[in-house]
This record gives sequence, structure tokens and C-alpha cells, in this order.
Amino acid sequence: MKIGFIGLGEMGRPMAANQLKAGHQLTVWNRSAERAGPLVEAGASLAASAADVAADADAILLMLADDHALRSVMSAGLLAAIKPATVVVNHSTVSVAYARELSAAVTALGATYVAAPVFGRPPVAEAGQLNIVLAGDDAGIDKVRPALNAMAKKCWPFGAIAEQANVVKIAGNLMIASAIQSMAEASALVRAHGIEAGGFIGMMTQTLFATPVYSGYGSMIAERRYEPAGFKAQLGLKDVELGLSAAASVHLPLPIAGVIRDALLDALAHGGGDQDWSVLGDVAARRAALDGRRARATW
Amino acid sequence: MKIGFIGLGEMGRPMAANQLKAGHQLTVWNRSAERAGPLVEAGASLAASAADVAADADAILLMLADDHALRSVMSAGLLAAIKPATVVVNHSTVSVAYARELSAAVTALGATYVAAPVFGRPPVAEAGQLNIVLAGDDAGIDKVRPALNAMAKKCWPFGAIAEQANVVKIAGNLMIASAIQSMAEASALVRAHGIEAGGFIGMMTQTLFATPVYSGYGSMIAERRYEPAGFKAQLGLKDVELGLSAAASVHLPLPIAGVIRDALLDALAHGGGDQDWSVLGDVAARRAALDGRRARATW
Amino acid sequence: MKIGFIGLGEMGRPMAANQLKAGHQLTVWNRSAERAGPLVEAGASLAASAADVAADADAILLMLADDHALRSVMSAGLLAAIKPATVVVNHSTVSVAYARELSAAVTALGATYVAAPVFGRPPVAEAGQLNIVLAGDDAGIDKVRPALNAMAKKCWPFGAIAEQANVVKIAGNLMIASAIQSMAEASALVRAHGIEAGGFIGMMTQTLFATPVYSGYGSMIAERRYEPAGFKAQLGLKDVELGLSAAASVHLPLPIAGVIRDALLDALAHGGGDQDWSVLGDVAARRAALDGRRARATW
Amino acid sequence: MKIGFIGLGEMGRPMAANQLKAGHQLTVWNRSAERAGPLVEAGASLAASAADVAADADAILLMLADDHALRSVMSAGLLAAIKPATVVVNHSTVSVAYARELSAAVTALGATYVAAPVFGRPPVAEAGQLNIVLAGDDAGIDKVRPALNAMAKKCWPFGAIAEQANVVKIAGNLMIASAIQSMAEASALVRAHGIEAGGFIGMMTQTLFATPVYSGYGSMIAERRYEPAGFKAQLGLKDVELGLSAAASVHLPLPIAGVIRDALLDALAHGGGDQDWSVLGDVAARRAALDGRRARATW
Repeated sequence: MKIGFIGLGEMGRPMAANQLKAGHQLTVWNRSAERAGPLVEAGASLAASAADVAADADAILLMLADDHALRSVMSAGLLAAIKPATVVVNHSTVSVAYARELSAAVTALGATYVAAPVFGRPPVAEAGQLNIVLAGDDAGIDKVRPALNAMAKKCWPFGAIAEQANVVKIAGNLMIASAIQSMAEASALVRAHGIEAGGFIGMMTQTLFATPVYSGYGSMIAERRYEPAGFKAQLGLKDVELGLSAAASVHLPLPIAGVIRDALLDALAHGGGDQDWSVLGDVAARRAALDGRRARATW
Repeated sequence: MKIGFIGLGEMGRPMAANQLKAGHQLTVWNRSAERAGPLVEAGASLAASAADVAADADAILLMLADDHALRSVMSAGLLAAIKPATVVVNHSTVSVAYARELSAAVTALGATYVAAPVFGRPPVAEAGQLNIVLAGDDAGIDKVRPALNAMAKKCWPFGAIAEQANVVKIAGNLMIASAIQSMAEASALVRAHGIEAGGFIGMMTQTLFATPVYSGYGSMIAERRYEPAGFKAQLGLKDVELGLSAAASVHLPLPIAGVIRDALLDALAHGGGDQDWSVLGDVAARRAALDGRRARATW
Repeated sequence: MKIGFIGLGEMGRPMAANQLKAGHQLTVWNRSAERAGPLVEAGASLAASAADVAADADAILLMLADDHALRSVMSAGLLAAIKPATVVVNHSTVSVAYARELSAAVTALGATYVAAPVFGRPPVAEAGQLNIVLAGDDAGIDKVRPALNAMAKKCWPFGAIAEQANVVKIAGNLMIASAIQSMAEASALVRAHGIEAGGFIGMMTQTLFATPVYSGYGSMIAERRYEPAGFKAQLGLKDVELGLSAAASVHLPLPIAGVIRDALLDALAHGGGDQDWSVLGDVAARRAALDGRRARATW
Repeated sequence: MKIGFIGLGEMGRPMAANQLKAGHQLTVWNRSAERAGPLVEAGASLAASAADVAADADAILLMLADDHALRSVMSAGLLAAIKPATVVVNHSTVSVAYARELSAAVTALGATYVAAPVFGRPPVAEAGQLNIVLAGDDAGIDKVRPALNAMAKKCWPFGAIAEQANVVKIAGNLMIASAIQSMAEASALVRAHGIEAGGFIGMMTQTLFATPVYSGYGSMIAERRYEPAGFKAQLGLKDVELGLSAAASVHLPLPIAGVIRDALLDALAHGGGDQDWSVLGDVAARRAALDGRRARATW
């Protein structure tokens, strides 16, 4: 099928590449055109504008950074160019409110909107092993199934209301953030009692919490190795804010999310915005002055 | 070796039974003697008092419910009866402060103290597959290794300071509690947006959080099935309080633990003390009146 | 002087009326024109549009509900109509971000912007006894001093950077919210121990906390009398959100504000959005099922 | 009347002195006898032991630091020496649980127990202007009225259940702690936006919050002057813990109290245990690295 792909960041590039590998005809666009180089070499066309992507696509796949980036692309001509026969597949992690708005706007054009946020890091995207959360029009989903299959380990259907897929994605991200924060607190507790965090985290992630989420972030916390960032603290804050907003819109308090938000603000205030969001480990330790204690040798 | 075992609750009984299976000579005692029946039939001796257990044991294994229960047994004659050649192995989840105190008291008698709290539920104990956290005197640990091996999948050594094993156990329990609370919040979020929690939890526990801790508690939250309790909310509260106390003693704030404490108090206030601690799922939902909304059909 | 006044709500009407009483020439505008009736009878002119207010005013006083309302008025022609000689005095409680943006927009026109948020309820406004927080251009402030004096008990200068007055207003509102929440928690504590909240609040507000903020909200909590609302819970939530946003923009966690936000969401979820924000008293009590306990006579 | 007074700290000394001034016959005891010097010079008798105080007293007034100190005195002979005709008046801030226990123990002896915790600092005690919270046996209260009148501006009766007076005292202290924390957060917010906290606190405490609690602690926060301590952070933590325990015993979450507890732990971890508990101002600022920002001149 003819696929347009917009947004060639760390995730978007391998996702688009897998469309080529699956034999689809691919047109791409990115704000910084140089990102498209390897894809073009591999056979993709580079569109002159986002709107041009819409000219002849069966499906337009979107993988933008946030509401703001996606809004910019849409209002710069893409939305107006979408044709009724097209299926718009939005992989971006955006707010529930904007997902609802965009779904309505696309549908109003007679086109089809599918929400398809993904779980997985860049290497997982490269391997075509993403978990894709799906919601939207059934017929539309069927049409883009070949494109989804090129990227997914599995697609998880969540019904016909598109933005519900975004709720699921946001709720899942809150679970990841909570896992990190719980290791941050638990590690600070053992450290404050004179125990090396590495041994503790090692045991927990080989027994009750034997999953890559825990072992990956856990070792970063234990080693206090927050660079290079897999996912930056400032992006983590943005995601937690998405969760808090989605909850506030339905009058739901999320106290743990609030605690994590405060800890991430603390991280940013201390210069950790570009560090991995597992820098929450240092925030928890700083509240108890753990480093100062050692420095003072009073511990 | 000659083993005394005190505390025959849901965990203690299978742990003691595994000593018999390993061929050790076993003397047991429990406040309610009838709990000892099957063990006696299988070959254990029933001591007339806790102190009598100490008469001839190479190792005394303790699996009491909490500080209070252990203190009672100790002050009712057990402590005074411990002989210098004996190794006291404390499997109970007790406070760090009491663990330190008891370790000192046992050591002052010339005997050896080993802290050996465990991770695992009763079926795991029965299978002899517990993860045992170990700290204390090296020589003492070597002596009781055969007894430990009879119960453990693996022993995790954490050095010579006994109470540090209790810190590790308590910190691990906080991680479990956090995992439950994070699913409680995330499930309330999806439910509040009209999504069945079961589908959400199902996906998360088959992908990023594919561990029994998550799938077990997650399904209880999704199905709102809190009985029979695997671990009661009131015991969960006690464990979280152990964490907060251990942290306060070293001047460490643990904000997530505080949030969970408040949620468990809410559960107890609403009559959920004997329900499984995953009843945190209902606490999160109640804050947003999720049931009331459905009842009012305004959702 | 010639004064234009836009926004004739509960606060705006008495503030505008005091301009007439002080002998100023007054032109008013409100989205719902009928609100202007009594002012017109008292001598004010009713403008056909917000933009018309700007035609001939020395000062334009703004008292709109929130960012959204003020933005609407501005973009519907008012901003374009402001003349260089005019001083724009913004009394509205708006976000720091929008205050900064509006200040820049007005200044870019060559006109003068003064931020002047107020503390005080409608009866205080009527008595011309508001406390006005002032920031902005000194010369501009001097020009509008007669208008301010007509409404204020006292003006509190906070320098030349206009939006800093908004920070002060927002921080002050957080203090009020915290006072309410602290009485909510303390009252729940005494009630849960079988003590009538009225006696407790009565003593505290006649001794250490003898101020109208405490005695007013305290008696509402003690009597559980949340209607008619002096200040609605949903507006309270909006104000707390302003505080959290202002703090997040400078990477500052505000944990108490987060707690209050969660409690207000709980209030809204339970149908209390139009009740006075002291309904926080019921939120605190509900967490401990205080009413249920009495109903069950188990207390 | 014949009064025994035990506990001659900063509060106890002026309270006892006022008994002499009122013409009562006074016998005193303190763990450190030298504290009694000025009282003895003024006419008091110094007892050889706490138990001796009970020999001939119509009323025994107790002003000890905490549960531990009071328990020590009681178990060292005082309790056993109390005579049936005596009224025990406990002014100490103790836990609700211990107040209940002590009340029962005293009553079991046939004697009378009155709980009478006080609000007021040492200078207020010296002026005989304390606010005294009263609960217990009516006849007992009547008997000791002359002693109470010698110390009180006003007595506030809270019924016959003695420990309810302690609940009231503890709840009142939580309100003070909340007031401090709210100023800590609000001051950090204005500072983070470049506004001097002094001007902000000055305005708030001359308008909506014109009470000594606010102006006193507020100026300490604004000036970051935490020494000498009026009330030490470590004692503040103890009081907040009393509130959390009293609440937990009735299954009541107190989220603000939890936030303050965490902030006080942070203060203690950073060496502020002996500073005034308004050092919460620095905790709030540290979370946003406010000092570091200035040092880096990036602010």
C-alpha cells in the first residue's frame, strides 16, 4: 500500500523503515529534512511538505513528539490536504483532549482516524516488535493492518473510540513512571541504611520484578548512571502531565502521579532535565542528603 | 541437624515441613498448638513451650507475625533459654529497630543471630522455592545452610549486619505495594474514561509488566475481587508502616509510601481491612466516585 | 478621569460602582449587557462593544473570570483598539504566563500595562476596602492612582514587572486554600475521635487563628454548610491549578498544593463543584467514612 | 490549695511560678533538680522524688516533654504514690493512646484524671495567659479550677473523656504546622519568580492572615532566620507524628500532615533538627534549588 510517514525522530525512522522492508510504497516528511536521508536511500520519496504527503497516500502515519508538534504540522496544511479515502494513523503520544479533537477534525473531512500509540524503545521499533494500542474505526483499522503488522509484535484493540487508545498509553506510561519512582524510594531506603543499592536492585529484578522495565531503570538508579538518557526527565514530566490532565478532565485524583510530578520538577530544578528520568533515584536520595552524609563521613 | 521452629502460620507450616523432608530433626512450637498436628504426624516433636524448643536445637527458626508476636515469645522464656551454640534464624518480617535489638540480645548471650526474611507466598514456601534475604554472622550462616537450602530457591547474602536483611525485605515490600497502587491509579484512569480495566491490565501484564506480582494483583483489581485475601490490607498497612519507620529513623522521606499508607487507611475505614490489599483499586476509584457515576447513569 | 470597566461580575460591579462614586466618568461593558443596568442608572455609559470602551478611556480596568474570558475579550477587538495614552489595569486573576503575554502585547502598542489583582470578597469590594497588589510601570501606576484609591483599602506595590503581582495573588490564594484544607483535616481528626468540630474550630478561631479567613471557612466546615458558595470548588480548583502552573514553570514542586488539587477533584467527582470550596471538609471526612460510621452506629 | 508540679522545662517553670503567685502551696520536682532553684527561692518546696510530690498534694500538675518522659516518671514511683483524693492534671502534649492509658490507670487508683494541654509559648505562660484545653471528670475540674485560673487566659471545656483534650491539642498543632508549610511553599513560589519573600509575607500577615502565628513564623521564613529556635524541627516532627498516629488509630488519612512529615524529615536530614520548625521554608526552596540558581547566576 501507499504510505505517508510524518515525524522521523528516534522512533519514527525505524517505524518508517519497516514499511519499506514490508514492501510498501513510502513517502516521508520531517521538519528537519536531513533525517530522511537513509530512508530516501532505501527507496522512500521525500515530500516537499507535510501536505504533499497526503496527496496520494492510502494511509498517513504520524509519529510526532507532542501536541504542539502535531498541531503545527496539521495547521501548516496537512489537515486541509487529507483526502476522504485516507486513513490517518496517529502513533504520537498526545493528550486525550487533542486526540479527541483531531479525531473529530479528520472524521469531519470524511476521512478515517485511527489512534495507534506504541509501547517500545527505538531498538524494539527497529525489530518491528512494538506493542501497538489500537482504537478507532474498524474498517479503517482493517485497511491499515498491513502497515501495522510491519511494525508490531502485537496490536491490542481497545474499541471504536479513538482517544481511548491514548488514555491506555498514558495510563501505561504512569505505570512505568511509578515503577521508577518506587525503585528510587526503595533504593534510597537501603542506601540510607548502609546497603549498596546494586545488590538490592539486582535481587529484586531477578526475582519478583524480573522485567526489562525494572532491570533497565533499576540498574541506572543503582549505578546512578543517568546519561545517555533513554528517555529524558523533561519528557517524562510531560508524560506525567498528560496523565494528570487526562485524570483531571474526569475528576480523578492520582496521588502517585502527583508525587512523581513533584520529583521530576525537583530533578529539572537541579539541572537534570536532559538526564534519563530514572534520575528520580537521585531526587529521592537528595531529600535525605545521602551524599552529604557520606561526604561528612558521619554515616 | 536439630532444628527448632517457632511460628506455624500459613508460611511457617510449609517451611517447617520442608525441614522434615530434608531429613532434619524437628521440634516445633506454636501459640495455638493444634496448628502443629500435621507436622507432628509427619515426625516433628511438639515442645511444651517456646523455651523448650531451645533446649537442644542447633538452630531455632522463627516465623512470627510481627514485632509484637516475636517479643511476646522472646520475653515468655525463649530468649533466656537460648544456648551459646545455637544459631537463631529470624525469618519474621519485623521492624529494623527490633531486629537490631534482638540481634544484640541474642549475641549478648554468646549465641549467633541470622536475619533471614523471605519473599514468597505459601505455595512457594511449600515448593521450597523461597527467596531468602540473608544477613548476619558468616559462620552462623554456614552452620544453618542445610536448613536454609531446604526452603530456598536461592539465598541472597547482604553482609554481616543482621538488620540490613530486614531493611531489604521492607524495601522490597514497598516496591510490591507501589506496584499495586500504580495499577490502582492507572485502572481508575482508564475506567473513568469508559475503558474496561481488564483489557488494560491484561495488555500491560502481558507486555511490559509480565511478572506474577503484576498479573496477580492486576487481575484482582480489574475484577474487583478482593476476597479471599492473599495478603490482607491491614497487614499491608503494617508493612508500609515498617517502611515509613525504617525511613524516618534515617531521616528519609518516602512520599509514595505515604500515599499508599493514606490509601490503606481509607480502605480500612471503609471496612476493607480483611480484604486483599489490592483493594487499593477500589480506593482509587472511590475518590472519583466511579461507581456512583455509573449508578447515576451520567457517565 | 475617564475610566472604562470591562467585566461586571460579582466583583466587577461594586468595583465599577466605586469609580462612579469617586466622580470618575465611567464607560462599562459586559458580555451579558443586563448586568450593567444599575451602573447605567447610576450614570455610567454602556459601550456597544469591548473595543468601544477603549475609544476614549484614560484607563481600562479589567475584571474577567479567567485567562479564557480575558483572551476572548482581547481577541474580539479590545486589544487592537487600545490607544497609546491608555493605561490598562488588569484586576483579573489570570495565569502568570498570560499576564506576561498580555503585558508584552499592550506595551508593544505603546500603551501602559499595570497588573492589579485584588484580595477581598464582594462586600469588601463594595466598601472600597480591597487590598490591591500592584506591579508595572511606575508612571502608569501614578496615572491610575485615583481609580485605584476609589476601590482600595491599601495598594501593595511589588515592583515594575507586571506579572509578579499575579504571582503574589496566586501565592496568596494558595495560602487560603491551605488554611481551608488544614481545617478540613483537623476537623476530620477531632470528629473521628467523637468530638464536635464546632467546639474545636470555635476555640482555634478565637485564639491562634482569629482571622476572618479561618473563622469564616472554619464555621462552614464545622456546620458542613457549603451552600450558598462564597467561592465555588470548581473555581478553587482553577486557582490551585494556576499555582501549580506558576510553580512548574520555575521547576518548583508544591506538595500541599498537589494535595489540595486532588481533594478538590474528589469534591467535584462527588458533585460538589458548585459548592463552596470549604467542601474540602467533607472530602477529608469521606476518606475515613465518618458518615458511614455513624450510620452504622459502630462509632 | 496544695499543688505538686512535675516537669520544670521552659513551659513548666512559669506555669509553676504562677501557682505560687496565686497563693497556692507548691511542691515541685524535676529530673534536673537545679531547674527548681528560682521556684524554691520564691517559696516552693523541692521534693526528693516524683513520688514524694504525691504525698500531700490536692492536685498534681504534669508538664513533661513527651510520652517517654511522662512514662518514666510514672513508672519510677509516681503512679503508685497517687492518692485517691488527688486530681492529676496532665498538661503534657502526649499521644492520645497514652493519655487514654494513663487516664485509666489513674482512675483505677480511685484518683481523678484531668487532661489539660495548653496552647501558648513561654512568655504567654509567664503572663498567665495560656489557653487550656480541658477534658475529664467535672468534679475534678472544679476542684483544680483555682490552679487552672492561675495559668489561663481561658479554659476550653471539651467534655468528660480526658484524651479528647489531647486530640484537640494535637489537631491544633497540625493547623500550626500547616500554616508554616503553606507559607514555606508560597514564599518559595514568589522567590522562584524573583520576588522578595519579605514583601509578600508582610502583605499577607497584615491583611488576610493578621495573627501572631502567621506573622511570627512568616517573618522567620522570609528572613531565613531559624535560630534561635522557638520550637525545634525535631519536636515539630514529633508533634506531627502524634497527629498521624491519632489519625491512623481511627483510620483517617491526613495527606497534608504526611507532606509536612516528609518535609521535616528532609530538614532533619539536612542538619536542621535543632533549628526552628519554620526551617520548612528552606526545605521548600531547596526542592527547587533556589539557592543554587542564584549562585549560578542563571536566575
